Amino acid sequence: MTDTATDHYLRNNADYAAAFDGPLPLPPARRTAVLACMDARLNVYGALGLAEGDSHVIRNAGGVATDDAIRSLAISQRLLGTREIILIHHTDCGMLTFGDDAFRESIREETGVKPPWAAEAFADLETDVRQSAARIRTSPFVPHTDAVRGFVLDVATGLLKEVVL
Amino acid sequence: MTDTATDHYLRNNADYAAAFDGPLPLPPARRTAVLACMDARLNVYGALGLAEGDSHVIRNAGGVATDDAIRSLAISQRLLGTREIILIHHTDCGMLTFGDDAFRESIREETGVKPPWAAEAFADLETDVRQSAARIRTSPFVPHTDAVRGFVLDVATGLLKEVVL
Repeated sequence: MTDTATDHYLRNNADYAAAFDGPLPLPPARRTAVLACMDARLNVYGALGLAEGDSHVIRNAGGVATDDAIRSLAISQRLLGTREIILIHHTDCGMLTFGDDAFRESIREETGVKPPWAAEAFADLETDVRQSAARIRTSPFVPHTDAVRGFVLDVATGLLKEVVL
Repeated sequence: MTDTATDHYLRNNADYAAAFDGPLPLPPARRTAVLACMDARLNVYGALGLAEGDSHVIRNAGGVATDDAIRSLAISQRLLGTREIILIHHTDCGMLTFGDDAFRESIREETGVKPPWAAEAFADLETDVRQSAARIRTSPFVPHTDAVRGFVLDVATGLLKEVVL
């Protein structure tokens, strides 16, 4: 029987649970929401020293403030009391390597259906961090935008570099 | 000067970078994408024993297969070679505590604007894991759906329980 990655992770989970001490309260203790790229090298827990219960973590392709990220931030702030937002993009991002139109057209060619969503690819990391911050600040649905900060993580060094928003 | 949660995390990041060994390749080594709830107590890295470079991690309020999660999965599979998908919801989820209509109406009352998105609240964890799996399997944009598995993490014990999809 083939051992899948999922099987591997489930064995790890047994070790995790053996040392686990819970439950913690539902609202994030540090009242913070992180919005980061899904990239496999961006270990948000390691890179920020996040502990269980500290902060919401929202992630998608690019770490972009899409409507769905805004939905998550609205729930985070309005129902669960978070106040700070941390945006994280990273160097060597896959979203820098393709164009929206070409990606969507390639899907249409293969499946016959063009995705109704933009792929959210971008050409410049800092510009896209700023766009995400602007989307959040101009959204009517995210009430607390005084403490939005943006960063680019260097996947070679693990260091966060702040982006002037 | 007030020390924010973000400042605290930036100090942690300096420690992380001091011990960091990179860069790793862009495509996830274990060819897996995880879709999980944003909940602060769901430490995806700890709970699965994820290492840097292993797997994409997509997260939103609920861990729901929204259109934006489908966008991320499409990019993950089509451009970066992942093949397995792991869905994770968790006990004591905030999404069990409110209703879509009431949440959106409360935002309309406060801001004058009703969100164009559904809040994606749900009444049953396993049912929503199954719905997320079904959304992925029926999406024309996610090509590899043979290896989709779904779980509920118990925030009291840290253990993953598999959901029959």
